[in-house]
Amino acid sequence: MINSKLPSIWYGGDYNPDQWPEEIWHEDMRLFKEAGINIVTLPVFSWAKLQPDETTYSFEWLDKILDLVAENGIYACLATSTAAQPAWMSRQYPEVLPVDVDGRRRTHGSRVNFCPNSGVYRRFSVELARRMALRYKEHPALLIWHVANEYGPHCYCEQCAAGFREWLKERYRTVEELNKRWNMSFWGHTVYDWEEIVPPSNLNGDNRCFQGMMLDYKRFMSDSILACYQAEYDAIKAVTPDIPITTNIWGLFNGLDLKKWGERMDVVSWDSYPQMNEPMTNVAMRHDYMRGLKDGKPFMLMEQTPSQQNWQPYNSLKRPGVMRLWSYQAVAHGADTVMFFQLRRSFGACEKYHGAVIEHVGHGNTRVFRECAQLGRELEVLGDTLLDAVAENHVALLFDIDTWNAVEITSGPSVDLDYLKQAQKYYKAFYDAHIGVDVISPLSDFSKYKLVIAPVLYMMKPGVAERLEAFVQNGGTFVTTFFSGIVDENDRVKLGGYPGELRKLLGIWVEEIDSLLPEMKNRVVLQGGFGQVQGEYECGLLCDLLHLEGAQALAVYGEDFYAGMPALTVNEFGAGKAYYVAADAEDRMIADLCRTLCTQAGVTAPFGADTGVELVQRKKDGAVFTFVLNHNPAAASIHLGGLAAEDLLTGSRVTGTVEVNGYGVMILRLE
Amino acid sequence: MINSKLPSIWYGGDYNPDQWPEEIWHEDMRLFKEAGINIVTLPVFSWAKLQPDETTYSFEWLDKILDLVAENGIYACLATSTAAQPAWMSRQYPEVLPVDVDGRRRTHGSRVNFCPNSGVYRRFSVELARRMALRYKEHPALLIWHVANEYGPHCYCEQCAAGFREWLKERYRTVEELNKRWNMSFWGHTVYDWEEIVPPSNLNGDNRCFQGMMLDYKRFMSDSILACYQAEYDAIKAVTPDIPITTNIWGLFNGLDLKKWGERMDVVSWDSYPQMNEPMTNVAMRHDYMRGLKDGKPFMLMEQTPSQQNWQPYNSLKRPGVMRLWSYQAVAHGADTVMFFQLRRSFGACEKYHGAVIEHVGHGNTRVFRECAQLGRELEVLGDTLLDAVAENHVALLFDIDTWNAVEITSGPSVDLDYLKQAQKYYKAFYDAHIGVDVISPLSDFSKYKLVIAPVLYMMKPGVAERLEAFVQNGGTFVTTFFSGIVDENDRVKLGGYPGELRKLLGIWVEEIDSLLPEMKNRVVLQGGFGQVQGEYECGLLCDLLHLEGAQALAVYGEDFYAGMPALTVNEFGAGKAYYVAADAEDRMIADLCRTLCTQAGVTAPFGADTGVELVQRKKDGAVFTFVLNHNPAAASIHLGGLAAEDLLTGSRVTGTVEVNGYGVMILRLE
Amino acid sequence: MINSKLPSIWYGGDYNPDQWPEEIWHEDMRLFKEAGINIVTLPVFSWAKLQPDETTYSFEWLDKILDLVAENGIYACLATSTAAQPAWMSRQYPEVLPVDVDGRRRTHGSRVNFCPNSGVYRRFSVELARRMALRYKEHPALLIWHVANEYGPHCYCEQCAAGFREWLKERYRTVEELNKRWNMSFWGHTVYDWEEIVPPSNLNGDNRCFQGMMLDYKRFMSDSILACYQAEYDAIKAVTPDIPITTNIWGLFNGLDLKKWGERMDVVSWDSYPQMNEPMTNVAMRHDYMRGLKDGKPFMLMEQTPSQQNWQPYNSLKRPGVMRLWSYQAVAHGADTVMFFQLRRSFGACEKYHGAVIEHVGHGNTRVFRECAQLGRELEVLGDTLLDAVAENHVALLFDIDTWNAVEITSGPSVDLDYLKQAQKYYKAFYDAHIGVDVISPLSDFSKYKLVIAPVLYMMKPGVAERLEAFVQNGGTFVTTFFSGIVDENDRVKLGGYPGELRKLLGIWVEEIDSLLPEMKNRVVLQGGFGQVQGEYECGLLCDLLHLEGAQALAVYGEDFYAGMPALTVNEFGAGKAYYVAADAEDRMIADLCRTLCTQAGVTAPFGADTGVELVQRKKDGAVFTFVLNHNPAAASIHLGGLAAEDLLTGSRVTGTVEVNGYGVMILRLE
Repeated sequence: MINSKLPSIWYGGDYNPDQWPEEIWHEDMRLFKEAGINIVTLPVFSWAKLQPDETTYSFEWLDKILDLVAENGIYACLATSTAAQPAWMSRQYPEVLPVDVDGRRRTHGSRVNFCPNSGVYRRFSVELARRMALRYKEHPALLIWHVANEYGPHCYCEQCAAGFREWLKERYRTVEELNKRWNMSFWGHTVYDWEEIVPPSNLNGDNRCFQGMMLDYKRFMSDSILACYQAEYDAIKAVTPDIPITTNIWGLFNGLDLKKWGERMDVVSWDSYPQMNEPMTNVAMRHDYMRGLKDGKPFMLMEQTPSQQNWQPYNSLKRPGVMRLWSYQAVAHGADTVMFFQLRRSFGACEKYHGAVIEHVGHGNTRVFRECAQLGRELEVLGDTLLDAVAENHVALLFDIDTWNAVEITSGPSVDLDYLKQAQKYYKAFYDAHIGVDVISPLSDFSKYKLVIAPVLYMMKPGVAERLEAFVQNGGTFVTTFFSGIVDENDRVKLGGYPGELRKLLGIWVEEIDSLLPEMKNRVVLQGGFGQVQGEYECGLLCDLLHLEGAQALAVYGEDFYAGMPALTVNEFGAGKAYYVAADAEDRMIADLCRTLCTQAGVTAPFGADTGVELVQRKKDGAVFTFVLNHNPAAASIHLGGLAAEDLLTGSRVTGTVEVNGYGVMILRLE
Repeated sequence: MINSKLPSIWYGGDYNPDQWPEEIWHEDMRLFKEAGINIVTLPVFSWAKLQPDETTYSFEWLDKILDLVAENGIYACLATSTAAQPAWMSRQYPEVLPVDVDGRRRTHGSRVNFCPNSGVYRRFSVELARRMALRYKEHPALLIWHVANEYGPHCYCEQCAAGFREWLKERYRTVEELNKRWNMSFWGHTVYDWEEIVPPSNLNGDNRCFQGMMLDYKRFMSDSILACYQAEYDAIKAVTPDIPITTNIWGLFNGLDLKKWGERMDVVSWDSYPQMNEPMTNVAMRHDYMRGLKDGKPFMLMEQTPSQQNWQPYNSLKRPGVMRLWSYQAVAHGADTVMFFQLRRSFGACEKYHGAVIEHVGHGNTRVFRECAQLGRELEVLGDTLLDAVAENHVALLFDIDTWNAVEITSGPSVDLDYLKQAQKYYKAFYDAHIGVDVISPLSDFSKYKLVIAPVLYMMKPGVAERLEAFVQNGGTFVTTFFSGIVDENDRVKLGGYPGELRKLLGIWVEEIDSLLPEMKNRVVLQGGFGQVQGEYECGLLCDLLHLEGAQALAVYGEDFYAGMPALTVNEFGAGKAYYVAADAEDRMIADLCRTLCTQAGVTAPFGADTGVELVQRKKDGAVFTFVLNHNPAAASIHLGGLAAEDLLTGSRVTGTVEVNGYGVMILRLE
Repeated sequence: MINSKLPSIWYGGDYNPDQWPEEIWHEDMRLFKEAGINIVTLPVFSWAKLQPDETTYSFEWLDKILDLVAENGIYACLATSTAAQPAWMSRQYPEVLPVDVDGRRRTHGSRVNFCPNSGVYRRFSVELARRMALRYKEHPALLIWHVANEYGPHCYCEQCAAGFREWLKERYRTVEELNKRWNMSFWGHTVYDWEEIVPPSNLNGDNRCFQGMMLDYKRFMSDSILACYQAEYDAIKAVTPDIPITTNIWGLFNGLDLKKWGERMDVVSWDSYPQMNEPMTNVAMRHDYMRGLKDGKPFMLMEQTPSQQNWQPYNSLKRPGVMRLWSYQAVAHGADTVMFFQLRRSFGACEKYHGAVIEHVGHGNTRVFRECAQLGRELEVLGDTLLDAVAENHVALLFDIDTWNAVEITSGPSVDLDYLKQAQKYYKAFYDAHIGVDVISPLSDFSKYKLVIAPVLYMMKPGVAERLEAFVQNGGTFVTTFFSGIVDENDRVKLGGYPGELRKLLGIWVEEIDSLLPEMKNRVVLQGGFGQVQGEYECGLLCDLLHLEGAQALAVYGEDFYAGMPALTVNEFGAGKAYYVAADAEDRMIADLCRTLCTQAGVTAPFGADTGVELVQRKKDGAVFTFVLNHNPAAASIHLGGLAAEDLLTGSRVTGTVEVNGYGVMILRLE
């Protein structure tokens, strides 16, 4: 449990009482309780109010609201308020302000608008966190700490340049080693002194020319920002060692090395804002990714909108039932909280058209409030039943931020190669087959899985190849694709033939990589068929021209001068098998392939379900909870066959074929 | 009359003799007279010539050309030449140069390239204007003053930042009040000192985050630039109190608060450059907007091209007859001048491919010159017949620059919401029905209208709701739409339920606003029909989910979870009615609605006309002049029915159905 | 011969041994010899290695590799390594770094990232070149000098501004003259002091407003960069007067005045990187353009890729045979070298996915290596047979960088007017008819041609009109088009009627220029027909409205208000004829027109060939070599009729209709 003081699914969200007069606070408490809200996050953006000048701190208003919250039986996710420094700080210490990738010093405004290597920022932010910890360490409402908010932007200032040089020195020791790692003899970039190193930016184009340098700058930035978080974390931990600490991740993005961040959080929390019309499989994958950041531990859904967003191009309303559906989807994938941004809509500035539990009309007699209150009642009934339940999946998808960055900044072979999309493509194959997937890092433990899927495993970190070999040796099934095994952590090609360190495991040599124009296509033609993979499929984007070195060709290309060369291979390796998908194949082939591999490995869905119905399992103390999530607007069915189960939400017993309402949810405890 | 010294339609335009040797001047005079030109605008861009250094002024060449002009019976629109400062000034006083929204100090060049809060610019520009006024106050050619040229660009420099703080201090008195107005507690932006305020720009992102701040910066910039104009105005007025003063507006744009500018001009003047293939209804609306800036007074068409432009992507020739047609369209809508940019084509720099009365070939034996000369002869014949004639329309369209800006910079609910397009959509409904419209400000007097149409009346300025209520109470018909009544002048939402202050007048409560993806549509389904509004219509973009509070639903939605909720309502209020169009309906519905409302209000077209024929009326001393403007390349007809009229351009009497040539024009004096 | 020390087609390319350990060097030598490679270019980017600090030079490693190369019988194209300054230089002398068009000082990185007017850069680069010349003047491997690499980017710094003022002073002597040339009275830009001149940039918009200024800045930049080249050239020449010197041009681009550059090179060299799917006619034209830079002398193909590129959006493999085909295409058009970037693929930084003779796998057992080696063997067999052979074409296409720039930066009449595309359109007509074309400058000698084609001869340099008149007077055929004869070298319109100085030769007056929207079209309707030009053709973009002044209308417009006006004219002038194509006609018409003109002038193809087969001739000592290049993937035929020839590549004798393999090549010596 995140904190046993509140042994149920935490329900609530961001609350900004400092934007409202006190008389509203009391009305808010009444409405929160009506909605079943048991936690409020605050004060996320109140630094200027808490510290009106360099030497004055003003916590009285926060005392008052926290006391009020506690009096009403509500808990607090206490935020350190350090995501937006006060204007006086930017004015007095302009070096707090970051410099952007175009070399422009930013001026005060917006948020997350500070240099992560600014000593001034670090000093003031840690001091604020420390004072808050000291003041509220015993407060009955305190449940968890929320450091800053949605960390992210990178800086390119002189402070950062100096910090980068130190970071490099520690990592590589000598400039000679640095020159090697970045291949600085290319274009005569050899440096002789640490001071000659300049951060890559739009001012030098080196963010496009020197991939090794760019990767390291991204790592350095992630580390620099993480150091800001860590400094607050340490200050708080020293005071309240038993209170968990987190910071909310704003999504699956490649600006921070999220896996490393996950390790530094007591519990992972994140903000889920699906884009309009985004396939639910992508949302599911993001939840699984966040769960994977702490190797399967439950996480917090820190923010979602009750109705609409404001910053999308088109901010449509969540249809009736959708907020509830998506909330349960988060829980299904491992969330032990359901929290909103925001509890009361602000009435000015850029988020005033973002949905809230309490809308601008100010009362609870709205569709949105009613849906929130209904969900609140349901969660109360669920109590602690689902808390700490975990997924026990047999399939793992490797996904790595470093690799993502490396693929993104590489020059050639195709601008259309999108690492995230490739991962989503394979994830979808399992999602559609109702088979749970853990999204893990290449550094994770593979031994508990039957299948490890690694689309575009472009960057080989030390030891990964050996560990994959061991996994297959011991009977595991491994799948990877074109553009894998190519480079090391510094984006240097592993010489001697692609796919480098994976060559032995896969039993192939890739001689050339063809890049197809968007309108060009090739075909993958099966050689006799492989399980459900039959006939032929379209492929494109990148096509490897490969030679067998022990592997067997399951399919060959149907077109072009490399027609007849292998397009899908399998290599028996010890007790297991390693598959190679040599080109970007259409979804239908990936689906057929993944289903076939699951069948072979004995990995099965919980039971049958119509298209658009998602099935997800969490397990706890021997009980298996299967979430049935109908993403269709219309009713759809699940097919339990001989199974029987109790729906936790209605208490009814279900068996055989059961209809689920449009946007409906069931949580089945299988008998 | 703008100036009774020239009691006819002023005909001429921008003339740059300083780009030509003197021998050309004499040829120009001959050609001007051949073309019927009676006014030349000059010297629009001659500051460097008039003041070659800080202390030297050189007016001799201007004396000479003005004398020549006068000798030839031509008048002058005397320009102050202050739109482009001399290079020496930018060099000597670099603070004259503006800083752009990306924080870059511009270098000398181009035009309208000065900081409007530069004391240096103000001092030098006023001094030049003063000297010109003193020198030419008695000149026989002097007809009107033309200050600077096409004011516009904003500046983000330190001078402006300081000025902004002063402007805010005067407006809000205390930082506490400022914090409230901009809702600065949002994201912790509370300031404690005026000096902490930084102009919103791309360097802080606050031009997207703090709408209240951004609106005020835009207002401040408009005021700053207006102060430049005003300072010259005052200097001139002190010397020549009886000579009118204007500055040419470059179009219907939202960078300046044009209504406020209109109040400071003795006569409004503007430059009409329709984009290629632009619907003529938009051009008509712009003319009506400009007429509205001084509540219906005649205005000046200061610039149009005789043939082609140079700065459009494709600069096609105006087809034969089109220049004449568009000139009369301007007059029809209230222009008492027809003026060109430019009289003689420059032979170097960026406008050399912009059309002129005298083309590069240098003589008058061209199609363009012949068309100009023909129009010149016609205008001579018209004499003062039309001068000071006014429109007497029963329909008013509310249009407001502040509201435009607020809608444009708001974050959510839809990027596709375009305030101008919504206004154009309603304007078009009346235009197509041959019904004249006044484009007015929310602060204008509504009492003289039968219909007031206010699409997307998003921002409610003080008193407007009360005045609209009074208008309807007294029998008026009011129409507004989705996303109305939402915010105050600081872009703060009016709490308590949309549409805020309009809720009582409209008898509705809008609970939610759905934003549709571009490919999503809903339907407006009539409940029994309303006049010509029958059956159903497509709608999209934004759809309000509303509840009746006294109003009646004329139509409901046909789709989605809010099918059956009201989509078009009417509320009886006193002796009048208030209509609410809850979604962005297709043009056909707006047309049917507007026609129905006109019928109910007894507002009628002058007579019938084929599609593409525009009818516009001006009235004077009891006479009604109906302009018949055939925008079709082919002949089309008007249908006078029992009416009879005289065509001022031919002297012929017309009645019944009359054919008008392709691109043809008639000016009918109804008997 | 470029250098008689190596009397065969030079075969090899860029080699970067400094990126590899010494043991690899020996393997490289073995592979080079296996592939028939006889020249390596180095060290292109090793400045930092050659000069690790301001006072230290380190040539030992270069000595070693050059000796190794020589020992293996391979020659060196010795590069001065000055395209990328060492990091220490940028750090110590920040003024070496350029300022971009947005006014941003760049930081160290990338390449060709120096200010061309930096005295520091000049001093250090010349010193390095001088030392290399002294050190290697007697080296047996030395064949040619390669200065810097792919010069190009422009700078906008203060050093350049000062240099620009000096350059202008020298060119125009007085500010009065400058004001005239740039028409600075426009928008009041008159300057009174040289110091008032500011380079045009995005900071002032003058790069869009003042075409004359912009053209001069481009010329000045080309001259400044050329001065960098020239300074190194002079330093080297003083030491090794007999060794040719070149620098590699990166393509047909308008950032440098390439014709002027060609004059300063002992042999022109360039890098050919066709875009994916680019029509081969464009590649052919670029080769012809490069040959024209030294009036027909053989040139060097300095770089091409053996397989794929990395910096295109999609970097597909060259299909089997294509590398060979394109290599021979270069030779056919006048190249006496076939050279690659790169010999061994780098393993880090941005070009690691660019093809190489030796791929990442590191051995020669690859498709790419085998194809390179096969070509190497063929070139050895050819020996010196083709060296110094020249084209003897009867058709010249005028193409001029200045004119290109002027057309590109002009404001109006159409954004779609693309000078290069217009030239390519006419080139293609001849290419498709298998007729050789010289691409020449307007300043070249016309007398040896039968046809001179000058599409969009917008800018008239001094004397060109007179020389064209003389050419036609003497029986030549001249063709030009719309938007010709308009401006002088300062982009000032020639007053008195278009097409200015060409009016007499063409016998026409262009009154107006219509610019058509992309979806608008007109028709060119023949008046009885002209040779193969029959019936009617589509036209668009720009349509001149012209009057005959002695010329005859071969065709008229079919649409719009200028239907019936001449659209294609011919003027008999002395013994020749001058044609005017008044609108942008479809390719089919240009093809018909060019074929007709060739027939009339007695210009014929060598023999017949199927579509997609290119025929090109080089002549030497009375022998005629006809290159047959089948750009089709499938076999195609040539039709020799009664001719007979020997194929140099196979030794076989061919006659009648002969099949050529897909992507196949023949070099026929006609009997």
